[in-house]
Amino acid sequence: MRRGDWIRAPEGLEPIPGGSVTTTPGVRASGVACGLKPSGALDLGLLLTTAPGPSALVDTASALPSAPVRRNRGIDRSRLRAVLVNAGSANAATGSPGLEDAHEMARRAAAGLGLSPEEVAVCSTGTIGDRIDLGIAGAGIDAAVAALADDGGADFGRAICTTDRAPKGGAFRLRLPSGREVVIGAAAKGAGMISPGMATMLAYLTTDAPLEPAGLQQMTGAAAAASFNRISVDGQMSPSDTLIVLAGAGAEPLAGADRDRFAEALAAVCRWLAIQIVRDGEGAEHAVRVLVRGARDPEEAERVARAVGDSPLVKTAVFGRDPNWGRVSQAVGAALVGRPGPVPEPDMRVDGIPYGAPEAAEVLARDEYDLEVVLGRGDAGAELWASDLTHGYVTINAEYHT
Amino acid sequence: MRRGDWIRAPEGLEPIPGGSVTTTPGVRASGVACGLKPSGALDLGLLLTTAPGPSALVDTASALPSAPVRRNRGIDRSRLRAVLVNAGSANAATGSPGLEDAHEMARRAAAGLGLSPEEVAVCSTGTIGDRIDLGIAGAGIDAAVAALADDGGADFGRAICTTDRAPKGGAFRLRLPSGREVVIGAAAKGAGMISPGMATMLAYLTTDAPLEPAGLQQMTGAAAAASFNRISVDGQMSPSDTLIVLAGAGAEPLAGADRDRFAEALAAVCRWLAIQIVRDGEGAEHAVRVLVRGARDPEEAERVARAVGDSPLVKTAVFGRDPNWGRVSQAVGAALVGRPGPVPEPDMRVDGIPYGAPEAAEVLARDEYDLEVVLGRGDAGAELWASDLTHGYVTINAEYHT
Repeated sequence: MRRGDWIRAPEGLEPIPGGSVTTTPGVRASGVACGLKPSGALDLGLLLTTAPGPSALVDTASALPSAPVRRNRGIDRSRLRAVLVNAGSANAATGSPGLEDAHEMARRAAAGLGLSPEEVAVCSTGTIGDRIDLGIAGAGIDAAVAALADDGGADFGRAICTTDRAPKGGAFRLRLPSGREVVIGAAAKGAGMISPGMATMLAYLTTDAPLEPAGLQQMTGAAAAASFNRISVDGQMSPSDTLIVLAGAGAEPLAGADRDRFAEALAAVCRWLAIQIVRDGEGAEHAVRVLVRGARDPEEAERVARAVGDSPLVKTAVFGRDPNWGRVSQAVGAALVGRPGPVPEPDMRVDGIPYGAPEAAEVLARDEYDLEVVLGRGDAGAELWASDLTHGYVTINAEYHT
Repeated sequence: MRRGDWIRAPEGLEPIPGGSVTTTPGVRASGVACGLKPSGALDLGLLLTTAPGPSALVDTASALPSAPVRRNRGIDRSRLRAVLVNAGSANAATGSPGLEDAHEMARRAAAGLGLSPEEVAVCSTGTIGDRIDLGIAGAGIDAAVAALADDGGADFGRAICTTDRAPKGGAFRLRLPSGREVVIGAAAKGAGMISPGMATMLAYLTTDAPLEPAGLQQMTGAAAAASFNRISVDGQMSPSDTLIVLAGAGAEPLAGADRDRFAEALAAVCRWLAIQIVRDGEGAEHAVRVLVRGARDPEEAERVARAVGDSPLVKTAVFGRDPNWGRVSQAVGAALVGRPGPVPEPDMRVDGIPYGAPEAAEVLARDEYDLEVVLGRGDAGAELWASDLTHGYVTINAEYHT
């Protein structure tokens, strides 16, 4: 059972069945298998807008960002027309040679597309520490350029995945207050290294809505903060995280109520993607929304939400459907070390039922539920989506690299 | 293969084969099965010194400490003569009724021992959130008083365990610079909720060395900081952690070189216990010493050591014997967010071999090894012992409660 109320979609936002990033008019995409994934699966994706408007980009907070992240920081994030993504190697912890590789990948794609390299963002995901084989990737880039298609969104969505069980994405139609209709297409990958600030995750949104560049960047940052920065699979921050929005051409950027509605929709689509990432967390069998209330201030609420959502003891209890609310109390006690004021025992509920009550057993068997933690110390709150810690997670991560 | 060099035992400290807390002259102990553990195993231990000197106590930093921890904070930690420990229920998150239960347990033990309740520390470990059945525990306390014996240390060590695979403890003879010999006996339990600051762990040391009370408390705090606060099984802080040292009677407290040597030995024994706790971490198959060097300051070194030692991605790679040094780089990048100065790629070695080199495979197959992370940002360092994240951990923690 999926919790539709987690998304909070604004009025007028409707999914388009079978949609993808290329459902947006003017957007083409492709996904090819060039040999970067040993499995032979699609491993290189290309996304292009032929009716370009402004773009926006938000990336990782890591102090050791990947080569593509560092490379993209050197170009104008508001003027992107294409995004090249490879899976299989993250091109992270690769030093100056890796940085040059990222530049070379951008140049190769730009040459094929007839663009300037500054118009092409590059993203890489996969194992950290390995150089990308540019012989393989270069041929893949050429093939991806040749394969660009108006219906290439599904292949693109598959090509960017790593340990994901399924591609994540889709498309939505948004009716604005003025009556105008716009499209938002989306693709994302997640699975591991998923944590607030932000996930190991790549996400790409396309839209034909015309927007003012600074406004688009601002609303993209806000959308990331309320979505990708509010999830945790394993509490691990990745060096590669990147969210890119490619917006549409148009002389008149959205304004007023239309602009506000679009910003709400962008945040809702990001939240929908983020929750899909948690649902598809490595080995995940349950998704939990941790709702912290009654904190002294937002920073405290955030700290408690992360402590609960990242706790391996809480995560294994969620996996085991164990009404072990004492572990939540333990995480709260650890999170509030050094904070001023009295710390009462928190009130803990699952979908409104006291965590320790016999009736909670039925809630814990659900695929998804709310875990509410009321601190009784003030009025601040926070929310965080977290997956459980399962044998599947251990298997994937003990066996992934070699 | 055990890494003897991790202990750093001072000159003159020798293990006593078959030793325990009761190897120390004047110390009696017992362990009984009163029914708090559903398995019927020993679950209540009592430790008594009949030749009491000063005592010392260090406990958890949690903002939600257990009832016994709160109760023990109300008595003079330098004048303890007995310690009562139950396993099966932690008496944590039990509010005022739980606090009264802890007082009642102390009173019952004190009555049986002919002591004042203020001379009896109480510790509880096990599930958080459940009240202790005082009917069961009360009868158990009476039985434990009756069972006190000069050779009761082994039973005591077993009674305090929860998910431990084996009791942890022993005894040592220490020859002081003056030629005098003293004994240090030790018992500890660990397994889960093990993290710096401090572990979910209980540890009890006994000695016939006479010490000055304030000095004993100071050296006990220092020993805990360099041992139990330097280990991580799962990064989780417990509400129950307690370390108690019962020292010997004597008109002339140790002084000068003898005192210093004793302090070194106390720290070494605590380190030995702490490393045993990591080796016996829930589901653990490997123990790793994370050695951080080249940090800008000690706080940064500590932050990096914890990020690496607590990372589920690093821990699963250790379990899988996977030379996935990129995950260590990822943890460093996350730990250094917001820190000033350039962040070079860290140099990473396992037992001196570059982590990514083919020869590292042999090291990763070892039960125990050093994982050295050189940051190149300054001169500060830190060390942390960590266990790996295995299917055993998930099984234990998904199934432990219910």
